[in-house]
Amino acid sequence: MTHLDDAFLADWAVHSRFGAVPGTNGVDRQAASAADGEQRAWFAKLLEQRGFTVERDAAGNQFGLLELVPGAPYVLTGSHMDSQPTAGRFDGAYGVMASAHACFRVAEELRASGDATYNLAVVNWFNEEGSRFKPSMMGSSVFTGKLELEAALATTDPRGITVADALDALRERGEGDVFGGETGREVASYAEIHVQQGRSMEEDGVTIGLVDATWAAHKFEFRVTGAQAHSGSTLMEDRRDALLGAARLVVAARELVDEFEPGQLHTACGELNVYPNSPVVVASEVELLIDLRSPSAEVIRDAHASLQRTIERVEREDRVRIEVTAEHSWDRNPYPEAGVELAREVAEELSLPSDRVMTVAGHDSTNMKDTVPTVMLFVPSVAGISHNLDEFTEESDLVAGVNHLTGVVRRLAEGALTA
Amino acid sequence: MTHLDDAFLADWAVHSRFGAVPGTNGVDRQAASAADGEQRAWFAKLLEQRGFTVERDAAGNQFGLLELVPGAPYVLTGSHMDSQPTAGRFDGAYGVMASAHACFRVAEELRASGDATYNLAVVNWFNEEGSRFKPSMMGSSVFTGKLELEAALATTDPRGITVADALDALRERGEGDVFGGETGREVASYAEIHVQQGRSMEEDGVTIGLVDATWAAHKFEFRVTGAQAHSGSTLMEDRRDALLGAARLVVAARELVDEFEPGQLHTACGELNVYPNSPVVVASEVELLIDLRSPSAEVIRDAHASLQRTIERVEREDRVRIEVTAEHSWDRNPYPEAGVELAREVAEELSLPSDRVMTVAGHDSTNMKDTVPTVMLFVPSVAGISHNLDEFTEESDLVAGVNHLTGVVRRLAEGALTA
Repeated sequence: MTHLDDAFLADWAVHSRFGAVPGTNGVDRQAASAADGEQRAWFAKLLEQRGFTVERDAAGNQFGLLELVPGAPYVLTGSHMDSQPTAGRFDGAYGVMASAHACFRVAEELRASGDATYNLAVVNWFNEEGSRFKPSMMGSSVFTGKLELEAALATTDPRGITVADALDALRERGEGDVFGGETGREVASYAEIHVQQGRSMEEDGVTIGLVDATWAAHKFEFRVTGAQAHSGSTLMEDRRDALLGAARLVVAARELVDEFEPGQLHTACGELNVYPNSPVVVASEVELLIDLRSPSAEVIRDAHASLQRTIERVEREDRVRIEVTAEHSWDRNPYPEAGVELAREVAEELSLPSDRVMTVAGHDSTNMKDTVPTVMLFVPSVAGISHNLDEFTEESDLVAGVNHLTGVVRRLAEGALTA
Repeated sequence: MTHLDDAFLADWAVHSRFGAVPGTNGVDRQAASAADGEQRAWFAKLLEQRGFTVERDAAGNQFGLLELVPGAPYVLTGSHMDSQPTAGRFDGAYGVMASAHACFRVAEELRASGDATYNLAVVNWFNEEGSRFKPSMMGSSVFTGKLELEAALATTDPRGITVADALDALRERGEGDVFGGETGREVASYAEIHVQQGRSMEEDGVTIGLVDATWAAHKFEFRVTGAQAHSGSTLMEDRRDALLGAARLVVAARELVDEFEPGQLHTACGELNVYPNSPVVVASEVELLIDLRSPSAEVIRDAHASLQRTIERVEREDRVRIEVTAEHSWDRNPYPEAGVELAREVAEELSLPSDRVMTVAGHDSTNMKDTVPTVMLFVPSVAGISHNLDEFTEESDLVAGVNHLTGVVRRLAEGALTA
């Protein structure tokens, strides 16, 4: 360990305390929660101590800006500090802290050499997780023009609080843009590092994952409509039970997986809401989300067709109506090959074992790669445990990731991918 | 229609307006809601105008007392005015209003004749529905000593509001007892009328249902425990999905029905809560309620055994834990035969078609019958629609029910079942 590694680990230890769940190794730091606000305030101070200027844009994205060359474009790097409820401390947060330290190191080098051509910026994207406010990747979606600012700000959490009000309560909503528009600032390139949230790198002995594509996915929001009835006295044949229909979909989604080769399809239902949700009333309405994910777009299409046949059978047999109220899909989505190659070269230089890897989960870089040259990196997750208090990454891997990202940011600041 | 019937229908029309759901025929008047409070205040005035004294006990039960013979025991009759969310306007509310008018009529007769031997009382039991505060039949359970007052008052709704606070906000919590204890007042007998919440009476042309027993039931609260995981990237074989386990139980409960003769088993799951209920997290915990109901205790036992085999299979195959966190069961539970016979005689006198009928749903009379001579009556429900905005009972049946209940209260006041 160098003194730079020690400095990273010291800040990382403090960083992990915000929203810590007592008696566990994890955190509960949902977007624009009090813990998110406290961590943002601490992080702003850390950046300012290192000479960065901190600004928030109107979507609540938090930026640390270091202008070395007035008017030059910025190399941007970051991730997100918000978490799922009762989640691990690495997801997103590691990427933000690694980005900050990578920038600190490269900034010091550039200040010493005096030959900077780009500026540096760190970003903490607002609401990547999408647990409190949907959709996920909200901040980077607004930043890249994929989501309207007004729609994002008007989004409400389950208690009816809007994004705008939640950000205002923390004084974390800026007034306009930080990049683009009238600011004159430009992003030249983007880099992000994240824990893998899978176990293949650990099993294969890979320290640096060179992310080359995102899995294809099809996400559905379903509304199942039945009719309220007394759950005791109503004859079974008179019932139109929305919760029964929804339960059949949840089971069907799991069984879909077995129609394909192992590892070719992941399905899930993580959210399901019942109305009126009373012990003695047959439910009249259930809303649920079902995701299909695969490295193959063809598997997604076949799985969708099979799910559709199940839906029609459930509608007929259980006399409920099943509508898709929203859906969102994407094909297998590659990261730019030049970024993968750049990351491979840096790993080789540092003698870190690396390999190409796909991401199943979405990341803010999924948005950014469509607008600027982008590098996406993974470090291993022990046993692939993710969105869980017990998520863990070894300290040596955390340190290796910061060193690698520093190499990437250095090259980007030298004009790699953009010059 | 007599002028007495007209008076009942006029009050009934006003009564149905409290908590009315705009654009529907139904109501939303959960226990200790603002609408419940407004209706209670109106009802208190109505009773007082007819010479009754209104008192609430410490559990929020609302009583109208008419002392005709100082120190004599009371004939009590009533039901409940609270509703499920978005429910019909007849369930419970009809019974309270029918009871009030039955007492008004018998009181007038007894005042005229001057030969009263019992006093009369009307009751609006607190929280029969159990949708906002569990368990159901809360007020009558405290009244009959089956539930501790302190436990009832400390019960919270999903927002954390206690029964005590909710009642206090409406000024509907009394300070002590209205009957028993130091009051010196005694209940001699009890009568209740309710809509059937089934369709057998309508189909069989029966106007007055002579309720002779409650179905046997076994109610379970289950907790399914899995492990939080990323719903995209976690390998399917690594998941321990609590919502999948719960969905399998919901489906299994429905399929249980087909193992028995038609009509011999009703099963339901009306309430299911998911944690963390986030679109991208495999659920770690789901709580759900499953009910088994049957006219036969043996069917309940066999169904329970079958459900237990399913639970063991789901635990093994889906690697989740399924615990029973609460359960509550009762055998087929008869109403006193003397009360059934009394009700039959009154129907005969009035030339109203009557027949014995079982109740699948629980009622406050289920509690009362264990402490005093009790009569339980039904009027028909069109198509058996219940716990639904479209619940309906024909006006002629409402009127017939009031006339019949009046006959029952008259006989009880003459000492039937108690003298």
